[in-house]
Amino acid sequence: MAQPPRKIGLWMIGALGGVSSTVALGLSNLAHGLGNPTGMVTALPAFDGLDLDALPTFIVGGHDIRAGTLLDAIEELGQRSSIFHPAQVAAAKDDLTAWSHNIRPGCVVSANATITAMADARRIQPAQDGRHAIQLIQTDLREFQERHQLDQVVVVNVASTEPPFELTAAHQSLGELNKILGQVTPPALPASALYAYAALDLGIAYVNFTPSLGASVPALEELARERKTVIAGKDGKTGETLLKTVLAPMFAQRNLKVLSWVGHNIFGNRDGQVLNDPVNKASKVKTKDAVLQSIVGYKPQTLVSIEYIESLDDWKTAWDHIHFEGFLGVKMILQFTWQGCDSILAAPLVIDLARLALLSQRRGESGVLQHLACFFKSPMGVSEHDFHRQSEMLRDYVAAILAM
Amino acid sequence: MAQPPRKIGLWMIGALGGVSSTVALGLSNLAHGLGNPTGMVTALPAFDGLDLDALPTFIVGGHDIRAGTLLDAIEELGQRSSIFHPAQVAAAKDDLTAWSHNIRPGCVVSANATITAMADARRIQPAQDGRHAIQLIQTDLREFQERHQLDQVVVVNVASTEPPFELTAAHQSLGELNKILGQVTPPALPASALYAYAALDLGIAYVNFTPSLGASVPALEELARERKTVIAGKDGKTGETLLKTVLAPMFAQRNLKVLSWVGHNIFGNRDGQVLNDPVNKASKVKTKDAVLQSIVGYKPQTLVSIEYIESLDDWKTAWDHIHFEGFLGVKMILQFTWQGCDSILAAPLVIDLARLALLSQRRGESGVLQHLACFFKSPMGVSEHDFHRQSEMLRDYVAAILAM
Amino acid sequence: MAQPPRKIGLWMIGALGGVSSTVALGLSNLAHGLGNPTGMVTALPAFDGLDLDALPTFIVGGHDIRAGTLLDAIEELGQRSSIFHPAQVAAAKDDLTAWSHNIRPGCVVSANATITAMADARRIQPAQDGRHAIQLIQTDLREFQERHQLDQVVVVNVASTEPPFELTAAHQSLGELNKILGQVTPPALPASALYAYAALDLGIAYVNFTPSLGASVPALEELARERKTVIAGKDGKTGETLLKTVLAPMFAQRNLKVLSWVGHNIFGNRDGQVLNDPVNKASKVKTKDAVLQSIVGYKPQTLVSIEYIESLDDWKTAWDHIHFEGFLGVKMILQFTWQGCDSILAAPLVIDLARLALLSQRRGESGVLQHLACFFKSPMGVSEHDFHRQSEMLRDYVAAILAM
Amino acid sequence: MAQPPRKIGLWMIGALGGVSSTVALGLSNLAHGLGNPTGMVTALPAFDGLDLDALPTFIVGGHDIRAGTLLDAIEELGQRSSIFHPAQVAAAKDDLTAWSHNIRPGCVVSANATITAMADARRIQPAQDGRHAIQLIQTDLREFQERHQLDQVVVVNVASTEPPFELTAAHQSLGELNKILGQVTPPALPASALYAYAALDLGIAYVNFTPSLGASVPALEELARERKTVIAGKDGKTGETLLKTVLAPMFAQRNLKVLSWVGHNIFGNRDGQVLNDPVNKASKVKTKDAVLQSIVGYKPQTLVSIEYIESLDDWKTAWDHIHFEGFLGVKMILQFTWQGCDSILAAPLVIDLARLALLSQRRGESGVLQHLACFFKSPMGVSEHDFHRQSEMLRDYVAAILAM
Repeated sequence: MAQPPRKIGLWMIGALGGVSSTVALGLSNLAHGLGNPTGMVTALPAFDGLDLDALPTFIVGGHDIRAGTLLDAIEELGQRSSIFHPAQVAAAKDDLTAWSHNIRPGCVVSANATITAMADARRIQPAQDGRHAIQLIQTDLREFQERHQLDQVVVVNVASTEPPFELTAAHQSLGELNKILGQVTPPALPASALYAYAALDLGIAYVNFTPSLGASVPALEELARERKTVIAGKDGKTGETLLKTVLAPMFAQRNLKVLSWVGHNIFGNRDGQVLNDPVNKASKVKTKDAVLQSIVGYKPQTLVSIEYIESLDDWKTAWDHIHFEGFLGVKMILQFTWQGCDSILAAPLVIDLARLALLSQRRGESGVLQHLACFFKSPMGVSEHDFHRQSEMLRDYVAAILAM
Repeated sequence: MAQPPRKIGLWMIGALGGVSSTVALGLSNLAHGLGNPTGMVTALPAFDGLDLDALPTFIVGGHDIRAGTLLDAIEELGQRSSIFHPAQVAAAKDDLTAWSHNIRPGCVVSANATITAMADARRIQPAQDGRHAIQLIQTDLREFQERHQLDQVVVVNVASTEPPFELTAAHQSLGELNKILGQVTPPALPASALYAYAALDLGIAYVNFTPSLGASVPALEELARERKTVIAGKDGKTGETLLKTVLAPMFAQRNLKVLSWVGHNIFGNRDGQVLNDPVNKASKVKTKDAVLQSIVGYKPQTLVSIEYIESLDDWKTAWDHIHFEGFLGVKMILQFTWQGCDSILAAPLVIDLARLALLSQRRGESGVLQHLACFFKSPMGVSEHDFHRQSEMLRDYVAAILAM
Repeated sequence: MAQPPRKIGLWMIGALGGVSSTVALGLSNLAHGLGNPTGMVTALPAFDGLDLDALPTFIVGGHDIRAGTLLDAIEELGQRSSIFHPAQVAAAKDDLTAWSHNIRPGCVVSANATITAMADARRIQPAQDGRHAIQLIQTDLREFQERHQLDQVVVVNVASTEPPFELTAAHQSLGELNKILGQVTPPALPASALYAYAALDLGIAYVNFTPSLGASVPALEELARERKTVIAGKDGKTGETLLKTVLAPMFAQRNLKVLSWVGHNIFGNRDGQVLNDPVNKASKVKTKDAVLQSIVGYKPQTLVSIEYIESLDDWKTAWDHIHFEGFLGVKMILQFTWQGCDSILAAPLVIDLARLALLSQRRGESGVLQHLACFFKSPMGVSEHDFHRQSEMLRDYVAAILAM
Repeated sequence: MAQPPRKIGLWMIGALGGVSSTVALGLSNLAHGLGNPTGMVTALPAFDGLDLDALPTFIVGGHDIRAGTLLDAIEELGQRSSIFHPAQVAAAKDDLTAWSHNIRPGCVVSANATITAMADARRIQPAQDGRHAIQLIQTDLREFQERHQLDQVVVVNVASTEPPFELTAAHQSLGELNKILGQVTPPALPASALYAYAALDLGIAYVNFTPSLGASVPALEELARERKTVIAGKDGKTGETLLKTVLAPMFAQRNLKVLSWVGHNIFGNRDGQVLNDPVNKASKVKTKDAVLQSIVGYKPQTLVSIEYIESLDDWKTAWDHIHFEGFLGVKMILQFTWQGCDSILAAPLVIDLARLALLSQRRGESGVLQHLACFFKSPMGVSEHDFHRQSEMLRDYVAAILAM
C-alpha cells in the first residue's frame, strides 16, 4: 500500500492575487517545515488516513492579466497589511521565483472596464471568441502538465469577481453550448466559465472560489461527468457569511425571530477595488444575502453592503447588527465585528479544496462535489446553508471512506 | 388518542424573581391567546406531534424568601427594564394574582449573608436541619398538588446562585446521605439540593436552571431513579455561553487556533446583585468558563467576568473578544456584543424544560435527561458542549418518539 | 426685576412627527413637575440667570400633512420604541389633546413623491404658488398668535428631509426673490423655505432642525434682519455626527492621521422612511459627511450610509470605524456603536433652541445666531465644526450676557 | 537669532521597554529623514516658531533592570506585535547599538516580587538605602552628561508601574525628607521617586509617564524649584482614558446623565504582566477611574478592569460601555472599542514632553508644568480633566510665548 510518488499541479486563475500568492507562500513554507497548517481543514485529525496529496507534491502555476511575480505580490501584500515575517518570505523565495515562470497571460474575450483598466496590456492573450479562448487556455494547461510531468492537475478560480451572467436555453446542454461558443456578442460564456470549460474538457478538476459563473452551468456539469472529472463551488465562505451560517441556526433552534440582519463589509484589497464597480458587486452581494432566509425559514429584512476602504488593505472588516425578537415580543440585539485578513482566511481553504477535489477524482467520482458545501457561500447542488450541517456532510463523506 | 384533560403544576424555587414572574406572565398571556411563543423551543414545528402539556394546563406556584406578588414583580421588572406593554400585564392580572397565593416562604437552614440581607424575615420558614427543611418543603408541595388536584408537578430552580459546595463520600449514595441529613455544621446539603431532595423523594421531576448544586449529587440521582422521576440541569444557557458554544465549533472545524477568549458580562438585576458577592460568583464563572476547552480540544487563555452594573437592570450585556490565529501565523479578531434581556431569554426555556421533563417522566424515563443538554451551560451527564451537536441529541430524541 | 408673565408659542413644522410629539410630551411633563430636564442644555447651571422662558409658558402648535393627534403620535412612538411609561403619557393627556387643536394642514406647492404618498389628502392646504403658500401659512400663524394672545412665537422645522435645492442669482437678495415667488416650475423655494419666509416676514424667529433648505438663503437672511428677527440652523446634531465632531478634534490635537472614517447609520422611524428615497437622502449624507475634513484639515476617505431598517423604529444605531495612523506608520482602530433614540435626543435641543432664539430676539439681535453652532451639523454662518469650540462660543455668549 | 548647536540627553527609566525602545527607533528614523512625525503633538503647525530641540540633537540613555539592547527590544516588539517594517529597523541599527551603551543597570533598594522576578540579577545596582541609590543614579547621570558633552538632560520615567505608596508628614518638606532618606523599612521613597530626586537634585528636568509616585511629593517639588528645574506628570494619557476625557465632556455639555461607565482593558505586553500583580494594578486603575467624576460633576457607577491577555502583546484593546439617560428618562448606550498599540501611542508623547520640559527649563520656569496637563491621566497640580480644556491650556502657553 506504498504511496506512489505523485506530482500535482495547482493552477490558479488570478495567480498573482492575494489569495493565490498566499497559497503559494503557504505551500512552500509548509513543504519546508516552516510553521503549522493552521486554518487548513484537511490538516485536522479527522482527515488522517485519507489519501490526500502531501503539500510538497504541489507545483503552482496559473493565469493572470497583470504583470509581476509571486514574490512581488507577497511582498506588497505583506507590507500593506502588516503580515508575514521576513523569515517566512525569505524561505519561500526560491519556490515563488520558480513558480512565477508557470504564470501565463490571462485570456480575454470581453473583460469589463474595471478589470481591463488594471490589466497590463502585455499580459493578455487576446481571443477572437470563446472557442479560441478555450484553445489558448488548454495549450497553457497542457504545457504546464507536460513540462512538470504532473500526475494530476486541479484548476482553482481565485480571480476577481465578474458581473452576473444570465444563462439561456443554450447553456442547458453541452451540445447546444458547443454550437454558440464562437459567438462574440453577446459572449457565449464569461471568462470564468471559459477557464472551467477548458479545464473540464481536459479532464481536469475545477474549483470556483469566487461568486463568478465558473462551472455553474448545466452544460459544464455535463462536460465534467463526461470527462470523469469533478467540480466544486462557488464563492469561498471565509468571513461574514461564515458567521451568518453559524449564528443563524442558533436563532432558528432557539425559536428567536430574526427581525433584521444588517451586514456592512469594508476592505481595501484589489478584490475590493473590483467590487467597487457596482456591476461586479452585484454578484457578491447576491451570494452573501441569500443564506439567511434559507436557514431561518422566513425572510427578515436584510441589508448587505461591501465597500472599498483603501486603508484597510486585505483586512476585511465586517459589522453585523442582528435585531431579534424573543419571548413576549421583547427585541434584543447581537452585534459582531469581524477583522479577518482575506487572503489568510481563503488560502488554506483553497489548498483544502484542491486536495479534496483531487482525491475525489482519483476515487472515480464525477460532477459536482456536494460534500464540499461547507466551503462555499453558494454551494453547488446543495440547498443546506447551516454551516454545522454542511460540516457533517463532509465528516460523513470522510468517515465513509475511512470505514471502507 | 384523545388527550386526557391534565392539570399540571409548575413550582419554581425563587418564585418572585425575574425569570419566574416572566414565566408566569408568559404562561398566562399565551393561555389567553395573547402573543406568540417566540423563544420557546417546544413551539417549533419539529415538536408537533409530541404529547407535550398545553400551556393553559399549567398552574404556577413556588417558594421565595422575599415578600411580594407576581404582579408586583412583573410591574417592577417591566418598568425598570422597559419591557412589557400595559396590555400584556393587564391581561395576566387575574392569573398572577391567583398564582401568588401559591407562593410559600422559602426554607432556610443556612443561607449566606448576601441572600439573607435581601430576605424579608417574615418570608422564611426556619429549619433546624436538612431533614427538617425537606419535610417543610414537602408539606408545601403536597398541599399545592392536593389543593389544585394536579396530575403532575415539576419543580424548577430559578433562585439566585449559591456559593460552590464540595461533595464528600457521604454524597455518593442515598444511604450515606440520609445518615447525615440532620447535620448542621457543615450542612449536609445546600438549599438548592434540599429542594431537589424534597421534590425527587415525592416522585416529582426536578430541573435546575441555575449553577447551584441542585440534584448534581450521585445520591440524588439514585433517589430520582428509585422514585421513577427525572432530573435536568444545570445552569440555563441563554446568552454569552450560548454564543460561545455556537462559535467555538466554527473555529475548531476551520482549524483556526483560538489564542484567547475574553468575555465581560455586565448586568443589574437581582441575580447580578447576588453574583456581586465573590463567593456566589465563583459558581457562575466556573460553568461559563469550562465549555471552551471542551470544544476546541486545547486550553486557550480565557477570562470571564460578571459584574453588577445597576443601571442595566435585566439587560445582560456581554462583550467577547476572540483572538485567533489563522494560516501562516496571522492573528485575527472576532468581537461580539450581546444585549439580551435575561428573564426574557430564560423564561421560555423554563417552560420548555418543564414540558419536556413532564413528558419524559410520563414516558417512564428516570434519572438524568441527557437529551436536554442543549439547554444548559453544564449539562448533567453529558460532556458535549457544541450547541449544534447538543441540538441534534434533542432532535434525535424527538424523532425517535415520533417514529414509534 | 420681576419677570412679566409671558405667553410663548412654539410652532413646529412636522407637528405630528416623533420629535415634535416628544417636545410636546416633555414640555407638558416638565411643566407639571414630572421628571427632570435631562438632555436640555439650557437646564444646565451655566444658563441660570438668563431670562429664558419658563417651560409652563409654552403653547404648542404647528403644521403637518398627516392626520392624527399628538396623543396618538406619542402612543405609537412609545409602543414601537419601548419608551415612555404609561404615567408619563397619562399626565400629558390634557395638554396633548388641547395642543392638537393648534395643528393645521401643511401647505404644499410641490412635495415630492415619497412625502405625498404618506400624506393624508385631507390634511393638505393646496397652494397655487409660493406666494400663495406664504399667505396661507401666515394666516395660520396669526390665528395661533391671536387666539392664544401670545407674546412671542418661534417656528421650528422638524419635518422630514427634502431633496437638495439649488440656489440661483434670484435667491441672493430679497428684492429679486420677491419677483419670482409666483413661479411654479421650477418652484421659487422648497416648502421648508416657504415656511421660513412666512415666519420671518411676520417677525417670528425661525429655527431649522433639519438638513432642508429652510432659511439658508441670502434673501431670507436679509428678510430676518429687516424684520428684526432671528434664524438658527441647520440639521440638529444629535448622534453620530455629534460624536464625529467630538472625536475628530482628538485625532487632530494628537497629530494622529485619520486614514478612513466609515459611518453606517440604521434606523426605522418615519424620517428613515423618507430618507430611503435616495433623492431625500442626499441632503442628509451631505451634512453628515462635511464636518470631518473641516476639523482635521485634510480629506480622509469617508463613507456615510443611512439605511431604513424597520424593526429599529426610533432607535438610530450607528457603527463608526475610524482607521488612523500613529507614530512610525502604525495603523490603529477606533470603533464605536451608538444606540440613541432619535426623538429623545432631538426634542430637548428643540426646546433649547426655541428658548435661546426667543431670548436673542428679545435682546434685539437679528439675522443668523452663530453662537448656536454647537446644536447643528451645518451651522449657518460658522465654519467651526469642533464641538468643544462651538460649545465655547455658546458659553462665551452666555457669559457676556451674565456679565452685563 | 541663530540656534546654538545644542546636544540633548534623553534618559529613560525603563530604557529597554516597549515605549523607550520605540522612542529610540522613532528619534533615529526621524533624524535620518525616514517617515513622518505622526503622533507627535509638537510637530503640529501650532508649535512652529518655538525653540524646541530638533530631533537629531537627542542622544538616548537610561536605566533598566533587564539585560539586552535597544535593537533586541525593537525586534522582539516588532515581531510580536506585527509592527515596524524591516527597513525602519535597519535604518536605526547604528543608533540603537550606540545608545545601548548608555544603558546602565537599574538601582534597586526594594522592588516588589513581580518586578524582581523579571530582572536579570546582573543588571541591578544594589543600594543599601535611598540615599545610596540616589548617589548611584547621579553618578550614572553625570557620566552620561560628561561623556556626550550634553548641554541639557531630561529624565523620563517609562518603567513598569509600582504599587501605591502612602506619603507621610516627612514627605511634605525637603528638610524632613532628607532626614529619612537612609531609612530602609519602610523605605523613605519608592524607586520612581529616588530617580526623580537624583535628577532634580542635579537640576535635571523630570517627567513621569507612569502612575508611579515619581516626583508627586511636596518635598520633591520644593527640590525642583530650588534647583531651578521642572517636573511633569503623571501617567501618560494614550488610550481609553484619553477617550474618556474627550467623550465625558460631551455628555456634560449636552446634559445627558451618565448612569454607568464600564471600561475593560486587555493587553499582553510586559507592562500588562506587571499590572497582573494586583498590588501594582491598584495604582493604574486609580488614575484611570478618577477622571469621570471630575468632568461630569457627579459620581456615576464606574468599573475599570485591566487584564493581561498574552496573545495581544502590545495591542491594548479596550471596550467601554457607557449607559446614559436622556430626555424623559430614556436610557441609551454608547460603546467603543479601541485597538491601539501602546508603545506607538506613548513614544511620540514622550518625545513631546521631553522637548516641552527642556524648553520650559531653558525659559527659566521651575516646578510643576501645569500646561502639560493634556498629556496625563493624573495631571500634577491641575484638577481639569476635560481633554479639550487641557489642550487649550497648552495652546495658550504656546501662544503666549509666540506673542512675545
